[in-house]
Order: sequence, then C-alpha cells, then structure tokens
Amino acid sequence: MADQSKIIRSGGLTWSDIPRKYYKNSTTGFKGIARWVLLGERDDEQALNIQTRYFEIAAGGYSSLERHHHPHTVVVIRGRGRMILGNQLEELNLFDTIYIAPKTIHQFHADGAEVFGFICIVDRYRDRPEVPDSPETLEKWISDPEVRRFAKI
Amino acid sequence: MADQSKIIRSGGLTWSDIPRKYYKNSTTGFKGIARWVLLGERDDEQALNIQTRYFEIAAGGYSSLERHHHPHTVVVIRGRGRMILGNQLEELNLFDTIYIAPKTIHQFHADGAEVFGFICIVDRYRDRPEVPDSPETLEKWISDPEVRRFAKI
Repeated sequence: MADQSKIIRSGGLTWSDIPRKYYKNSTTGFKGIARWVLLGERDDEQALNIQTRYFEIAAGGYSSLERHHHPHTVVVIRGRGRMILGNQLEELNLFDTIYIAPKTIHQFHADGAEVFGFICIVDRYRDRPEVPDSPETLEKWISDPEVRRFAKI
Repeated sequence: MADQSKIIRSGGLTWSDIPRKYYKNSTTGFKGIARWVLLGERDDEQALNIQTRYFEIAAGGYSSLERHHHPHTVVVIRGRGRMILGNQLEELNLFDTIYIAPKTIHQFHADGAEVFGFICIVDRYRDRPEVPDSPETLEKWISDPEVRRFAKI
C-alpha cells in the first residue's frame, strides 16, 4: 500500500481511528496506563522509521520499570508526574522533555491527584525492554535506597 | 561524548538550554515562525536517530511551502491553524496528528488570531526540502486554484 498523507483528528487526547490499547500484554509491573500509537505502525505509514505514541497514566498508576538499548524522546503534554531516571527521582511538569539514553532505567509515575500524559517517540524497529526479575536485580539497577523504595516492580 | 539521560525543563513552551532559533537561514517564503530543536541534534544525543522539534507560528505567519522525501510526524500542542496538505486545505486543532508522507506538498498557517504551535518529528539525517521556484511550478504542485491562492511562496 502506498503511503498517503493524512490527518488524525483529535477529540481532546483521543484520536479518530486510533484505538486505546492495553499498555502491554504482560500483567504485572504497571498500573493504570493506556497507550495510543498515533503514527508509525500501520501499513500505509511505511516511510516512517519513527513511532509516535501517547501514554496516559491514571492517578496512582505507573509504567513498568525497564531499560533497553533504544533511546526514548518524551514530551509531557498533560498534567504532571514523577519519574525514575537512572538513579534519580525527578519531577515532571507540562512540556518537560526527557531524553532517556540507551540502557537508562526508567519508570513514569502519576503520583499526584491527576492524569499524567506524555508523547513518547521511538525507533519503529527496536529491542525489547528488560525488566528486573528480582529484588536483587533491582538493587543492582538502582543503588539509591530511597529511589529504590519508590520503584514498583 | 557518551550519551546521558536528561530532562529539559519547560517554562511553558520555552525550554531551559534550548535556544529559540530562526526557522531557516533563507529569507523568503515564510513569516513569523520560530524553531526549537528539543532533542536529536546535539553530541550527547548520539543514539537518537530522531529529531523532535517545536515550531511556533505567530498569528498571520506561515511556514515555507515545501516537499521532500523524508516524512513528517506532526502533533499540534498549541492553538489552532490551517495547513496545505497536498491538494487540500485542512483545519488543525489541538492534538490533531498529521502524517506528511514523502513528497507531499505542505505549508502550515497560523491564520487565526492566535499563536499556533506543533511538535514535528523527523529522521535525524534527511534530504533537504524543495520549494517551488516560480508560479508555474506552484501550478504543477497544486492543481486546485483555491488552495493555490491560499499558498504563500
């Protein structure tokens, strides 16, 4: 199918013809998070080497704690939250932009009273994330005990 | 320089350490538009194959009318505007997402009373845009006379 330009209309952080998806097919290590793949996975978008996704985390939710070789570009477009980025715990506000370099451990948390949403841009073809398989692995990944206590696995 | 994860703090659609840039070095064909390269052009972001830019157009302004082989992923994050996309004139509202396929002619217009801003994601290494060099070329590029009248070159 040849690529065709198109506009995906938004109705306020939902998009026509783009389904709200489960975050992942596995069942543990995350909570209250949904995923929309806006562009870069369909057959009529073959020229795109880039996937642009929108993630939304309900208050109290979090993404999986993970690391991988592919880098992430993240732009906050709704609300605020916090994240584990390597050995740090960081606050995130609207339009903050995050570079997650290869192999940096990361986890997003909607730990306030509001929904937290961000765009996350990745290579279309990329490696699978690695998650800690035990508390011992977590201890190797995150040396700061306070940050480690904040982590959810 | 090894890549390091980082957070680029926003102060409401401006970002710490990210300069507001001229849109282009050429002097014609656009008006009232500024550019921020959020991620993907610096030495400590070598792993990124992706550039994430923010463009902002003042009321009455427009980007250059152009086409190129590399595709664009665009997400509106401020205000509203219109665009020429191929042979169509399209309205754009907050969070609308646009796929500009290879070689599709496009131009963004802030033709309302407000500032119009969008994220535009591209391959880090890409071809240079082509612009129409004459009214005759424009006529070849855009067959619809009404859309052509809206175009600025």
